[in-house]
Amino acid sequence: MDSDERSGAGPAGGGTAGATLSEETRSRILRAVDARFDDEVRFIQELVRHPSRRTAERSAQDLMERAMAERGLEIDRWALDPVELFAHPGAGFVEVPYDDVENVVGTYRPVTESGRSLILNGHIDVVPEGPEDQWSRSPWDAEVRDGWLYGRGSGDMKAGLAANLFALDAIREAGFAPCGRIHVESVAEEECTGNGSLSALMRGYTAEAVVIPEPEEDMLVRANVGVIWFRVRVTGRPTHVREMATGFNAIDAAYFVVGELRALEDRWNAEKAQHRHFEDLDHPINLNVGMIRGGDWGSSVPAWCEVDLRCALYPGTSADAGWAAITEALAAITADANGNPITAAATRTGFYAEGYVLEEGSDAEAVLERAHRAAFGAELESFTTPGYLDGRVFVQYADIPTLVYGPISRAIHGNDECVDLESVRRITGSIALFIAEWCGIEERAEGA
Amino acid sequence: MDSDERSGAGPAGGGTAGATLSEETRSRILRAVDARFDDEVRFIQELVRHPSRRTAERSAQDLMERAMAERGLEIDRWALDPVELFAHPGAGFVEVPYDDVENVVGTYRPVTESGRSLILNGHIDVVPEGPEDQWSRSPWDAEVRDGWLYGRGSGDMKAGLAANLFALDAIREAGFAPCGRIHVESVAEEECTGNGSLSALMRGYTAEAVVIPEPEEDMLVRANVGVIWFRVRVTGRPTHVREMATGFNAIDAAYFVVGELRALEDRWNAEKAQHRHFEDLDHPINLNVGMIRGGDWGSSVPAWCEVDLRCALYPGTSADAGWAAITEALAAITADANGNPITAAATRTGFYAEGYVLEEGSDAEAVLERAHRAAFGAELESFTTPGYLDGRVFVQYADIPTLVYGPISRAIHGNDECVDLESVRRITGSIALFIAEWCGIEERAEGA
Repeated sequence: MDSDERSGAGPAGGGTAGATLSEETRSRILRAVDARFDDEVRFIQELVRHPSRRTAERSAQDLMERAMAERGLEIDRWALDPVELFAHPGAGFVEVPYDDVENVVGTYRPVTESGRSLILNGHIDVVPEGPEDQWSRSPWDAEVRDGWLYGRGSGDMKAGLAANLFALDAIREAGFAPCGRIHVESVAEEECTGNGSLSALMRGYTAEAVVIPEPEEDMLVRANVGVIWFRVRVTGRPTHVREMATGFNAIDAAYFVVGELRALEDRWNAEKAQHRHFEDLDHPINLNVGMIRGGDWGSSVPAWCEVDLRCALYPGTSADAGWAAITEALAAITADANGNPITAAATRTGFYAEGYVLEEGSDAEAVLERAHRAAFGAELESFTTPGYLDGRVFVQYADIPTLVYGPISRAIHGNDECVDLESVRRITGSIALFIAEWCGIEERAEGA
Repeated sequence: MDSDERSGAGPAGGGTAGATLSEETRSRILRAVDARFDDEVRFIQELVRHPSRRTAERSAQDLMERAMAERGLEIDRWALDPVELFAHPGAGFVEVPYDDVENVVGTYRPVTESGRSLILNGHIDVVPEGPEDQWSRSPWDAEVRDGWLYGRGSGDMKAGLAANLFALDAIREAGFAPCGRIHVESVAEEECTGNGSLSALMRGYTAEAVVIPEPEEDMLVRANVGVIWFRVRVTGRPTHVREMATGFNAIDAAYFVVGELRALEDRWNAEKAQHRHFEDLDHPINLNVGMIRGGDWGSSVPAWCEVDLRCALYPGTSADAGWAAITEALAAITADANGNPITAAATRTGFYAEGYVLEEGSDAEAVLERAHRAAFGAELESFTTPGYLDGRVFVQYADIPTLVYGPISRAIHGNDECVDLESVRRITGSIALFIAEWCGIEERAEGA
């Protein structure tokens, strides 16, 4: 640390990087969060108003880039390269053009790097809103009602992206500067491949800890599942319409095939006792029939049907092993329920990811426990989630302790998605305290 | 009849319109069919090479118009008018633009109309070919192999359209001219609404008999079913992915709804003994799940699913009555198999048609029996078909005896559709003999 360059400021609360924060320092930081919270809500609303569906993230990323640049972060923005990604075993399969799919990273560098480094990660992409008539109002107007902010992506995870930025702001506005390098990542592709975070890692962004404020009910994710996305195309030889009652029908046959895959799902769920952190979940392995399409004509017996599925894997089951089990189950199907010969061929369409466990006892978790206690006045709880998280990128491929931890939400991926603003406020405070203790802080010079 | 205008030609074989044909007349006509049969096959091939899928019939209709004009028929070509059609109770529901959907009718008028009038009807539209990789070769190259002509529409019903024209040719080339007015109709929309034939009827084209050479295995259709096309949209409120095993999933729910409709189908099939001509069919009422699509994202529980269905009705059951039964069955569904509330809403998407019975004992059938016997050396058989036919337009709305009668085919609406060319040759001969006897013929003047 070069004290000349620090312009006379000393470590906050008399501490050094990694030291626990004083009560006064915590209060200054949490007050700063509160002071800016209306701005934070407006920023979440602005983000929600950009429908950053897959491959359409550009305008939302523009907003993130501008917000980072205004904060003096060093900007790096690049398009994901599917060819480069494809060489990585953790990459998801890509069925869309990546021309317009970009990551934005804003880097904060202390004048002298004396503290621990940190990645504050969040994803900009949102899942499709589904039929808008099933929403109480537009998924994009970001209304605040009874303390909840509504809209597609509000919880998953534009509130988290805002929390990362406003946590940093709070430290500055409380009069401090972090002592560690911080990369604020706004990545694409979290909802389909995980290739955004992976691309950032492959570009060289690493740190000693990662925070990802996904909507996790104010809790820390202890373990999560891996996920494989795949499409099953069922084909056969349709009989004449006259014998349709017992003949091959690709749409019926697709349902039969899904039933066979559900037998695999049942088998995996029956093994949950063998998987630490998953023993107590009712149904840790979910096979989701997410999309279906089949047939070309109302009066023709359909010759084909395609089903898009998402299947979970326990941590410790590699994507390759999961994929082998799925394809073996499909290969064993040679006839439909009526005995007509069929083919059920699978292709990978996205996620090809193993789950992860956040091992207990890390320094990062201890720091978050203290931050959470101060922000919420309650102990940090951890839990296991049966969904995909980009955390696996940092855990599996860079061995970085990764804290997926974020606000209370409702109906992510559903209708009327919303996020609890009081929870967002506290999470922002908790992240700010985490940054301060993890990276260490020093008093900022006047006007710096 | 004005003999001056007949240029000295007398009724063929000494007969008058409606008289049975002499052996010699029959032989002359059948020989003329044989002499032109290579041309007829080439014409079918040319028609098959125009993929006249719905709304894309134009180039095939151009070919039909040219073929009619070359034969000296008076051409009438018009675009179907959905608004005008909609006023008719037999019209199908239209979900496509009709800007480019046209009928072509070519009219033959004898110099003096002394014989019975006739409509030779056929449809130009074909159903989609489905996945081309499931065909042995292109659905559009019209290959002839082992006496079968292959391709989408070969049997259903470009061979029939050709048979109508070449039957007329045979009469001329045998040295005769029909004594009755003949309308050769090439209509659109037979595969989805029946609006093509209906539009021709509404335009004023009527006659004393109709022949439609659909692919009917060298047999006459005695009765057929009505058909309704409809789409069921199933919606509900998806639960969080964590509870997906017992929660609402619109794709699963759609299958549950189809199951409920299949109970209606079973009930109707169980009543077959009450429907003359349908008692002996195994499964006269078919509910076909023709198309399905649902969901927006692999990792979201689908909030919606749409299924396109085709359901048959017995003759005597009006489309309104069938529709009421279907919508009542759907209205009774308030929850999915897991008890989650759902909505299953139906909209009409095409056919809205009652079936028909060709009453025995008509003059037209007697004439066809003689024609068939002469062309095939076998007795004409009749049968009941569980599919839609435009015949219902002429029977239901103009009380015209309508003979749906045509060649042997395989896999209509399936892969590797084909038509038996020897059957087409004989059907062409039979239609030619039918025309000759039904309309009456007279010897053509030299050069006429």
